[in-house]
Amino acid sequence: MELAMAILAKENWKRNIHVISQKLKRFPGLLWQTIWKVGRDDPRRVIHALKVGLSLTLVSLLYLLEPLFEGIGQNAIWAVMTVVVVLEFTAGATLCKGLNRGLGTLVAGSLAFLIENISEKSGHVFHAVFIGTAVFVIGTAATYMRFFPYVKRNYDYGVLIFLLTFNLITVSSYRVSNVMKIANERLYTIFIGCGVCLLMTLFIFPIWSGEDLHNSTVAKLEGLAKSIRACVDEYFSDVEKEMTREKSSEDPIDKGYKAVLDSKSQDETLALHASWEPRHSRNCRYPWEQYVKLGAVLRHFGYTVVALHGCLQTEIQTPRSYRAFFKDPCSRVADEVSKALIELANSIKNRRRCSPGILSDYLHEALQDLDDALKSQPRLFLGSSNNQTTSMLALAAARANAIQKHAENNTGVSWKSRGMNSERSKSSEASEGKALRGPQLSRIAITSLEFSEALPFAAFASLLVETVARLDNVIEEVEELGRIACFQEFKSGDEVAVNC
Amino acid sequence: MELAMAILAKENWKRNIHVISQKLKRFPGLLWQTIWKVGRDDPRRVIHALKVGLSLTLVSLLYLLEPLFEGIGQNAIWAVMTVVVVLEFTAGATLCKGLNRGLGTLVAGSLAFLIENISEKSGHVFHAVFIGTAVFVIGTAATYMRFFPYVKRNYDYGVLIFLLTFNLITVSSYRVSNVMKIANERLYTIFIGCGVCLLMTLFIFPIWSGEDLHNSTVAKLEGLAKSIRACVDEYFSDVEKEMTREKSSEDPIDKGYKAVLDSKSQDETLALHASWEPRHSRNCRYPWEQYVKLGAVLRHFGYTVVALHGCLQTEIQTPRSYRAFFKDPCSRVADEVSKALIELANSIKNRRRCSPGILSDYLHEALQDLDDALKSQPRLFLGSSNNQTTSMLALAAARANAIQKHAENNTGVSWKSRGMNSERSKSSEASEGKALRGPQLSRIAITSLEFSEALPFAAFASLLVETVARLDNVIEEVEELGRIACFQEFKSGDEVAVNC
Repeated sequence: MELAMAILAKENWKRNIHVISQKLKRFPGLLWQTIWKVGRDDPRRVIHALKVGLSLTLVSLLYLLEPLFEGIGQNAIWAVMTVVVVLEFTAGATLCKGLNRGLGTLVAGSLAFLIENISEKSGHVFHAVFIGTAVFVIGTAATYMRFFPYVKRNYDYGVLIFLLTFNLITVSSYRVSNVMKIANERLYTIFIGCGVCLLMTLFIFPIWSGEDLHNSTVAKLEGLAKSIRACVDEYFSDVEKEMTREKSSEDPIDKGYKAVLDSKSQDETLALHASWEPRHSRNCRYPWEQYVKLGAVLRHFGYTVVALHGCLQTEIQTPRSYRAFFKDPCSRVADEVSKALIELANSIKNRRRCSPGILSDYLHEALQDLDDALKSQPRLFLGSSNNQTTSMLALAAARANAIQKHAENNTGVSWKSRGMNSERSKSSEASEGKALRGPQLSRIAITSLEFSEALPFAAFASLLVETVARLDNVIEEVEELGRIACFQEFKSGDEVAVNC
Repeated sequence: MELAMAILAKENWKRNIHVISQKLKRFPGLLWQTIWKVGRDDPRRVIHALKVGLSLTLVSLLYLLEPLFEGIGQNAIWAVMTVVVVLEFTAGATLCKGLNRGLGTLVAGSLAFLIENISEKSGHVFHAVFIGTAVFVIGTAATYMRFFPYVKRNYDYGVLIFLLTFNLITVSSYRVSNVMKIANERLYTIFIGCGVCLLMTLFIFPIWSGEDLHNSTVAKLEGLAKSIRACVDEYFSDVEKEMTREKSSEDPIDKGYKAVLDSKSQDETLALHASWEPRHSRNCRYPWEQYVKLGAVLRHFGYTVVALHGCLQTEIQTPRSYRAFFKDPCSRVADEVSKALIELANSIKNRRRCSPGILSDYLHEALQDLDDALKSQPRLFLGSSNNQTTSMLALAAARANAIQKHAENNTGVSWKSRGMNSERSKSSEASEGKALRGPQLSRIAITSLEFSEALPFAAFASLLVETVARLDNVIEEVEELGRIACFQEFKSGDEVAVNC
């Protein structure tokens, strides 16, 4: 028995070792993959990393080179710290942090100087009590201030640095007599560090938050255009797709709108940093606020696309034979909407005004076509001939039966499918029962069945029309953007033929 | 002339002074309001601010009190810095930052020690070159590593501190001979600082990220419940509301779902911090991942609510007289959905399992009622009696005419309303034309008109049904949450009567 246990333990141990060694073997490959992927996704990351390395080496020279060190002294190390903390990926973020750091340090130095002057005339014990009290009061007040929305948004880092510097100077001043001199020297080196950061961020391969915001807006418009087209294509495709609620993350449809939905915090951060960037301020100020507004409208547009996508995933569906009648007009509306979105994306990309005339004309036609199609097919929803209704009923009943059987085979599924199926089987029983009672009664039942089966398509069509209404908001905001950012006027030669 | 200019300038100057003085007068009031509001919104903020003040004073004592200072020395100032940087609002965030800081410092110290050992045997110039190279390579590599998604999520701050400490030690080691001794001493004081932070954050009025996540989830469920009910109430209310697309931010409906839609980044941050918290790990691990999953499902639910809300705002609407037929069943479904959501919220709030039986039974009934209502009113969409159809047509035509006239009065409105109205006037002309041609033809036209007018309601009903399908996903995730977090079993006495 013990021997068996020992062998088992040994086996177990061997297996564990094997697993770990396997993992270790795979690790370099995985690491290399990650390194490669991170760089390929955005090559500017490599540039930024090199810039940080270079800046650190530059400020280290202040300390390492004899003549420079003699001028600046031990405090040169603060330049290194500043570079590590301040140099960020984009120019706007660096400026924001650098300015916050400078401001925080200055205010903290002044306040510390004031408190130092008040307290140094008093006795040793009182001095300590005074410093302790000041640290408590200022610490509490500054921390509380960080909760103010305005401060949190713009000056959170500045307040942190203020608190850090203030405590450093005030507490040190108790034992170090020439603390203000030290503080002064440090301020110089901090400014040197900030200077290096600004140089690197503004003049050597600069990365602009504003440009990121611009590009992400273009990408969002294109993603939405793709989503809508893919949505309508899938809705009217002849091949029944498997229910993919679970693995919807890999869907090409929601790949398009996913980036839009959760873009709020990223947009706001980019816009905040862009607002610090000086670049676009020659003729017009950079319209970062308008990008945020446009982002909000695009998110709202995105919610409609999500709902449209939801129509593809619901359990109750209008039969494909019904839908086929509306394939052309719906596809045209979707095409026009996505064409319009791509035109908007292109206009932003090329920094020119968009051509509203083209958008509205084609779109209007497509909408009219959809309207006509809905009006020209009333018999579909009426069931005009007896023959047709029976076949439709048979179709619906067969479908309900098939689903019911399918559900019976898969017992133990979640409540939803159970509830839905029992309901569905009831309705199929009801309609079958009514069908036996003759054409008069069945007429009403069929029509109602048709209506409730038409319901999902109606929702789809209605949401498609809703996207047109929302598209108008998007166009409005893009036009406003073009106006504020002084985009070029639209010329008739500008427009690029958009292929469907 | 000059006199007039001078007087004008003086007037202008006076006005400016007046405006500024008015602003200054209002400033203390505004400041006080902000202070009061920030504290009232979340009283824990006051506690946190006091905790920071107290911790800073405590660590300052290391420096200010004679006996403590003799033991620790000048490096006591690093404890102060640590407290400023590490002490965060919630326990999880503090632990995350503290551990990152500790880890970063340790790794940086070890690496710096290694490099120090290699380079110190070489000559003075080679030493400088070696340090410069090391700073460049490590700086570049560490910065690049911060872009790895896994590192960015969990160890961003740790890598920053690593870089900071590494540069500090390596560069200093060039001129300071006993740099490792200093580093060692600093490490002690940093640990003291971290200890004070942990003490404060874990034992004195602790604020848990996990609890925030828990409460925000409950609030989100309640918000969605309110939104849905308000949505349906407004849709079936008899009073025509003004178009409020512009001031929709103050709407009670989207106040409910707004918090849900943009919750992704906040949820993820809270969950990340909660994952560092030790508190709930006695019996079951804290299910922070499940809260994030539930958050995603709730966002998806929220998108449907947004689309539902969109139905209230579209220009083309099903007439209120039509809608009234479905008021009861729709209200019941909405009531049941929001009841279910509130039951889920209560179950999470009280950390007990929810009662799935109750949810499905009532909901099922309500759905069945809606289904029956849709089936029992086929004549509405068919127009069975001639009398009725004429009156409906008259109603529709009158409405279209009214809208058309309204549009003519408001020329110069945006493209959308123009497009919509011209289309609408066309269709009203068409239907009027057809009405003159006699009952046979008008029959089809009316039906089609009715169908296209019924379209928005169909979308509304379909989306309402969609919320039920989505609700099921929510229930699934909440049940999973209850299972993972070991919530109490549901007892029949637990359920609280939910008032509509």
